[in-house]
Amino acid sequence: MTRYQHLANLLAERIEQGLYRHGEKLPSVRSLSQEHGVSISTVQQAYQTLEQRQLITPQPRSGYFVAPQKAQPPVPPMSRPVQRPVEITQWDQVLNMLDARSDKSIIPFGGGSPDVTQPTLKPLWREMSRVVQHNLSEVLNYDELAGRRELREQIARLMLDGGSVVTANDLIITSGCHSALSLALLSVCQPGDIIAVESPTYYGTMQLLRGLGLKAIEIPTDPNTGISIEALELALDQWPIKGVILVPNCNNPQGFIMPDARKRAVLSLAQRYDIVIFEDDIYGELATDYPRPRTIHSWDIDGRVMLCSSFTKTIAPGLRIGWIAPGRYYDKLLQMKYAASGTNVPSTQLAASNFIREGHYHRHVRRMRQIYQRNMEIYTCWLREFFPCGICVTRPTGGFMLWVELPEQVDMVCVAKQLCRMKIQVAPGSLFSASGKYRNCLRINCALPPIDKHREVMVQLGTAVKVAMEPDESTAHR
Amino acid sequence: MTRYQHLANLLAERIEQGLYRHGEKLPSVRSLSQEHGVSISTVQQAYQTLEQRQLITPQPRSGYFVAPQKAQPPVPPMSRPVQRPVEITQWDQVLNMLDARSDKSIIPFGGGSPDVTQPTLKPLWREMSRVVQHNLSEVLNYDELAGRRELREQIARLMLDGGSVVTANDLIITSGCHSALSLALLSVCQPGDIIAVESPTYYGTMQLLRGLGLKAIEIPTDPNTGISIEALELALDQWPIKGVILVPNCNNPQGFIMPDARKRAVLSLAQRYDIVIFEDDIYGELATDYPRPRTIHSWDIDGRVMLCSSFTKTIAPGLRIGWIAPGRYYDKLLQMKYAASGTNVPSTQLAASNFIREGHYHRHVRRMRQIYQRNMEIYTCWLREFFPCGICVTRPTGGFMLWVELPEQVDMVCVAKQLCRMKIQVAPGSLFSASGKYRNCLRINCALPPIDKHREVMVQLGTAVKVAMEPDESTAHR
Repeated sequence: MTRYQHLANLLAERIEQGLYRHGEKLPSVRSLSQEHGVSISTVQQAYQTLEQRQLITPQPRSGYFVAPQKAQPPVPPMSRPVQRPVEITQWDQVLNMLDARSDKSIIPFGGGSPDVTQPTLKPLWREMSRVVQHNLSEVLNYDELAGRRELREQIARLMLDGGSVVTANDLIITSGCHSALSLALLSVCQPGDIIAVESPTYYGTMQLLRGLGLKAIEIPTDPNTGISIEALELALDQWPIKGVILVPNCNNPQGFIMPDARKRAVLSLAQRYDIVIFEDDIYGELATDYPRPRTIHSWDIDGRVMLCSSFTKTIAPGLRIGWIAPGRYYDKLLQMKYAASGTNVPSTQLAASNFIREGHYHRHVRRMRQIYQRNMEIYTCWLREFFPCGICVTRPTGGFMLWVELPEQVDMVCVAKQLCRMKIQVAPGSLFSASGKYRNCLRINCALPPIDKHREVMVQLGTAVKVAMEPDESTAHR
Repeated sequence: MTRYQHLANLLAERIEQGLYRHGEKLPSVRSLSQEHGVSISTVQQAYQTLEQRQLITPQPRSGYFVAPQKAQPPVPPMSRPVQRPVEITQWDQVLNMLDARSDKSIIPFGGGSPDVTQPTLKPLWREMSRVVQHNLSEVLNYDELAGRRELREQIARLMLDGGSVVTANDLIITSGCHSALSLALLSVCQPGDIIAVESPTYYGTMQLLRGLGLKAIEIPTDPNTGISIEALELALDQWPIKGVILVPNCNNPQGFIMPDARKRAVLSLAQRYDIVIFEDDIYGELATDYPRPRTIHSWDIDGRVMLCSSFTKTIAPGLRIGWIAPGRYYDKLLQMKYAASGTNVPSTQLAASNFIREGHYHRHVRRMRQIYQRNMEIYTCWLREFFPCGICVTRPTGGFMLWVELPEQVDMVCVAKQLCRMKIQVAPGSLFSASGKYRNCLRINCALPPIDKHREVMVQLGTAVKVAMEPDESTAHR
């Protein structure tokens, strides 16, 4: 990178981070040249670059000003999926995505890994080493079937923040939220059963349904308020639906938090039609606002909400610790855990339990909430800057995912294949639909820090999308 | 314990360990008194105790001699289970057994925990600490779906010893053998399907079938040579059986190794009837003889044998590392792993991989083989000594389990309940049968070191059995 490019990026970053506000005057060419020890012409070139990128505007005889804020890209409209039960496909694409995890040279914008590089995680390593030294007998032996009691006690305490009043005896530890959801479905469903899902829905959940031989019916979902109660009711009238999977807090991929009134409405619908709610709260603790949003589980009075969550997003995926509050299905779930996944690793459970007990967890999550919020703002700026006009972007209230809707003619499945050759992995929207909808959408993992390398990827991504928008010449000339 | 009891136990132990042979003269009362610094009368009392226990016999004017060896208790006869598919019950009893794991005050003779107290395991702790320090990024992040490659490579090498030629690409890591078997069944079966099993069969496997909604058909099994090929063929003629679960090497609970000819016979039967063999090799590495026995998998040519195993018995349950060589079902299994159990903990996989690579595994397993063999000999002596005549005991060729058949009138389910109050946990035989047979049998975990405390438990167990043999007076007087 040349000097002027470096300077331009530095200034762009400051603008994105809000250090220079929209409409504010930027430092003079001379003062910048002194500050950074570069020539006048380098600063001029940097300013010209930023002008081309429409980040700043020159005012004759006054210098450069930060460009007025572009309108936020609009939020995508309510989804309109096919409303009948379908078999789920696309396992191969998901498998490719999973394979990419082990290839360090691939930039995983399509995955769901959190940022595990922050210093607030350091006490966790210490606890992991300490546990091996001090709890050797527990570390080597079988765990309790329900999981370590001390950990369940800590989790019960955390769950109070979401309004759920449970004790250690109501909880079962699983190896991640995915496994919790899987055991929940295995406890309630038979192959061929129909499960209602938000649309779009996280591809892991889709493939889970597929693996267990279940059918999905996709329900229209609003990117601000969540699943359409009306559409869900219609589907319940029409089909023998066993349950509904919801991510009501910091939804993946759309980032919304369902308003409390709608959470309660969906619960009373579940009661009326006697179905189960599988509530996935994996991102709930990463809500931007404090205190964190309530779970649907917190209003449940007859044990029909099975709350699933994990430390995968809040601490680290490598712990493989999730949990479930299975309500009235507790006995069945314990049996399914024994049958389908077995007991868990004691060492990581003990380490996590100590990490929470000593207050490190809250400190870490507080920090991560801020980091992810900031990251999502910067990525949104980049989307505005590098992507074509006419895109829609969600405005998440937590978590670290952005959901982008591109113009209709863009086929992200094709774009993803091209990017793959450049070692960039993205998640095309079609993975988030049982019926392969949302080919013009994509999900972006903003847990990847907004560093130069990732900014560059966003530039490449934007370019690829722009190319995909152009009419195909070979077709045009026919 | 008084002095003479202590001395008596010490001498009994030496006799059991073969330090004094059968028929050999024991030290004089005077010399023992000098050796142990106790009074003459203490030694005399100790010898009288041993005489009562029929371990020694006095010869007038010559002193005491080790009693001639009692005949080895006979091996139980071939089992004769109900030969039709049945639903499995007794989950509650198994759950109690699992619950006992977390109660340190209970002596777990019914469980399957190996001995994890040996010094040859020390390098494992070191590896566990080291991994957290040196592989932090891997420890915190998602694992590959198939499991760590370096570990799969080590396992592929180990599998050569059993005659199975596979590469890392043919293996999938699971969280234990139980989970491997579960995924195998999920990949092949639908609820309601029928699976053939040896009879008796490990209760964990039975409950796994139950959890997945499968039916078991128990096939007569010989305690020396394994499942009856003839009876299996008969069942295959009569019922639409999907597969057969076998533990052909160091069987749990009966300890046999199927002769190679019978392994091949069962494989050709599977080919003829086009069924799957689920081969559980979890104890295979603990065979007494070197080299270890071959797996059925080693003769498989069309990928119908799914070999399941783990380090639970050979290293430590707390690692939660198992694996499967799923043959032709590889793709389906990977998908089921994603759906039903998710990825595994990276830290324990890395530690285990290093432990094997550095040669610690082979050293440890060599030691454990000898220890378990010795333990089983001592427990067999104790059974002979403290239990009523007329019992049958298996003669395992590996592993660490003894299967005991008591006189017909003994109801081990009742005895187990009594013992439970004394904080002694045993596994009544009925847990090992889908139809609740073998109520007069029990399995003993000889991984518990043959120390005084456990000898005392065997005395109590023997007494409880003797009481259970007496005609019930309340009934007799009617």
